[in-house]
Amino acid sequence: MRLLSRFARGELQLTRIEAFSDGVFAIVVTLLVLELKVPSLRDLQSATELAHHLLELLPKFLSWLISFIIVCKFWLNHTHVLGLARHATYGMVWLNSIFLMFQSFIPFPTAMMGEYADNPLAVSLFGLVMAVNTLLFIALHAYIVANLMKPEMANTQDPHVIRNSFVGVASYSIGAIAAWRSVYAAFLVYLLTPLFFLVPPAGRGAAQPSAGWAAR
Amino acid sequence: MRLLSRFARGELQLTRIEAFSDGVFAIVVTLLVLELKVPSLRDLQSATELAHHLLELLPKFLSWLISFIIVCKFWLNHTHVLGLARHATYGMVWLNSIFLMFQSFIPFPTAMMGEYADNPLAVSLFGLVMAVNTLLFIALHAYIVANLMKPEMANTQDPHVIRNSFVGVASYSIGAIAAWRSVYAAFLVYLLTPLFFLVPPAGRGAAQPSAGWAAR
Amino acid sequence: MRLLSRFARGELQLTRIEAFSDGVFAIVVTLLVLELKVPSLRDLQSATELAHHLLELLPKFLSWLISFIIVCKFWLNHTHVLGLARHATYGMVWLNSIFLMFQSFIPFPTAMMGEYADNPLAVSLFGLVMAVNTLLFIALHAYIVANLMKPEMANTQDPHVIRNSFVGVASYSIGAIAAWRSVYAAFLVYLLTPLFFLVPPAGRGAAQPSAGWAAR
Amino acid sequence: MRLLSRFARGELQLTRIEAFSDGVFAIVVTLLVLELKVPSLRDLQSATELAHHLLELLPKFLSWLISFIIVCKFWLNHTHVLGLARHATYGMVWLNSIFLMFQSFIPFPTAMMGEYADNPLAVSLFGLVMAVNTLLFIALHAYIVANLMKPEMANTQDPHVIRNSFVGVASYSIGAIAAWRSVYAAFLVYLLTPLFFLVPPAGRGAAQPSAGWAAR
Repeated sequence: MRLLSRFARGELQLTRIEAFSDGVFAIVVTLLVLELKVPSLRDLQSATELAHHLLELLPKFLSWLISFIIVCKFWLNHTHVLGLARHATYGMVWLNSIFLMFQSFIPFPTAMMGEYADNPLAVSLFGLVMAVNTLLFIALHAYIVANLMKPEMANTQDPHVIRNSFVGVASYSIGAIAAWRSVYAAFLVYLLTPLFFLVPPAGRGAAQPSAGWAAR
Repeated sequence: MRLLSRFARGELQLTRIEAFSDGVFAIVVTLLVLELKVPSLRDLQSATELAHHLLELLPKFLSWLISFIIVCKFWLNHTHVLGLARHATYGMVWLNSIFLMFQSFIPFPTAMMGEYADNPLAVSLFGLVMAVNTLLFIALHAYIVANLMKPEMANTQDPHVIRNSFVGVASYSIGAIAAWRSVYAAFLVYLLTPLFFLVPPAGRGAAQPSAGWAAR
Repeated sequence: MRLLSRFARGELQLTRIEAFSDGVFAIVVTLLVLELKVPSLRDLQSATELAHHLLELLPKFLSWLISFIIVCKFWLNHTHVLGLARHATYGMVWLNSIFLMFQSFIPFPTAMMGEYADNPLAVSLFGLVMAVNTLLFIALHAYIVANLMKPEMANTQDPHVIRNSFVGVASYSIGAIAAWRSVYAAFLVYLLTPLFFLVPPAGRGAAQPSAGWAAR
Repeated sequence: MRLLSRFARGELQLTRIEAFSDGVFAIVVTLLVLELKVPSLRDLQSATELAHHLLELLPKFLSWLISFIIVCKFWLNHTHVLGLARHATYGMVWLNSIFLMFQSFIPFPTAMMGEYADNPLAVSLFGLVMAVNTLLFIALHAYIVANLMKPEMANTQDPHVIRNSFVGVASYSIGAIAAWRSVYAAFLVYLLTPLFFLVPPAGRGAAQPSAGWAAR
């Protein structure tokens, strides 16, 4: 189609796309803390009453912690994947924008899970949103590898990297399903998922360690 | 006039203007999510009650979605237009600031339309604000093309590009008028408008595809 | 003093200082809109009731508008003044941080003036905060001119520029005093003050127009 | 361990890490002002009633001031320490992310201390969070010095610099303990701590003043 071919046009510079994305990521992680509201005390000077209220906030602290780590993980992967591209196209910019739209949505399910930690739907939706975010990131990644790859990096890429990302989709989905049986199990799955692949898979760039990063 | 000629002076670097603008765009799109408030439940653990409340939030989700796409579109066009300029002047900085002022205003009509999706005034004002934003962007675009164009890009520019932007002004205005008859029609118009011209018009840069982007 | 001389040390790069400052400026101008709260309606579909409430928000819209223009003016001047420096020192970083602290404070007096537009203290404090901000900016400007000036720009600088900035301090102070007689007069003064010197004084860089900007 | 060695891999560029970090720092300092809520007046035009309410906000203003200075101090040190690194690794990115997570947490204890300035637990937790932040920063600093140091800077570094940072940890901890005896003493300690080491220790770079900064 003529329209689709026009999406592939446009050699946009990556600088402003990165600046815009970094801004969104930075605001998302920092807005998360706004959900942690200072509790209302009857006895303003009572340390025990405050301690009691802070303990009740525990699910909110935990939701905040999990979301922060997940968004940082997305940011790190985003840095990596944009580093593979030699320039940007309209198609890539729109894939990136839709991905950022769902990133910026994360504070909502995070707040909902923190507020209703015993509600299976609230906990389940958190996993669902993260699964969708992972899928959108995979689309962005696949688009860049297929269309915009810097030639010198083509042979440093493990062809299994993208396939491995589906493990994240599966894991968040399992958490979303588990929430209907036990919210504790779901929290555990959400916490553990970003800890997989904290580092890139061992297979990539074995000969030239991390050339993908260095070449930028 | 002497005053006007002074606005044309000053060869300001574009770097910080872009950084400031990217910051404003990134914050605007991310603040939009703050309007999505977690609903209050009577039965904290009830999935059906939560589902019911989330469905009621549908107009808010839709307003958020529409605004996000529109602001991303403005950001993309802004990236493109600033890429045409060889430097900045005081006049351009002030046009840019006024444009950003109305961009940063967008969360207000978005929240209002989400809150009162059946109120014709609320829905109409959203379209009005978008029409004004498009007009301000046209002013910025025209100023740069007339005064600050990089010489090597002059012949890659389709003279109809700016004229085409008035289609957006007209479309948002039609939505603003339609809101008084049917808010559903207005929502539809607002959603479709940014989808026109997702890619730049085919006429531009046919010989040298998207030279405007590449040359930056 | 030994301590003072250590403040003058350290050849810090300007890049991150600019990035941090641009971030603060961008967030300040965008947070201002959060004070514009969507009004509560009894008849959700009533356009007249909404119109009535929006008219009541007029002082808030005006406060928002005035603050936005003032902060953009500060940002523009900040861009200019940091462009004069060949590098940064610890003293400059701290002056800049204190200036940014008072910039980030601006949403508070803006919200207060918008909420209590008839309260002389609320309106007066707005002017006071702006006068203090201008003074802090003068300190930053004077420090850079005295210690960090790029040699090639020394002769392009009008020695009266800094002295002229005190006009802003005086003007905001006059507004702050006028608020006790008439809040309307104060609003007018606040609105007009940033409009002076929208462009740099004619005297500067007459021979080499705006060399200060170009040289960056 | 094989896993640990993979953390040390990856020659990531510092640009986006700095942009992301600067974004987080800028948002944290600017969000602090959101805790300063405009007081509710019964007599909207009464200057005395407003003045009375503003005086009651004094602990909030003070908390805001202390936090702002502390975060600026962290930002300045962060700028310095990242300037020592020749590139980034996965290990460094994760240390940096965990440090930023606790930076972005600061608005919560700041709001709590401002709200309950007489509550020993609220005041104590503020010091505790700052001590943890300092510890995390020390970890980041030590990691960079041990693994990523630019060779040309190795001999400009005072080996005592990191050790000296523990003075900050001790000082915030003393404040956190003092809060249980006197919240005034704790506020004083928190205010004074960032004022130590406003400038880098005299020992560093005596021969080549601040080469660490200049070389970037």
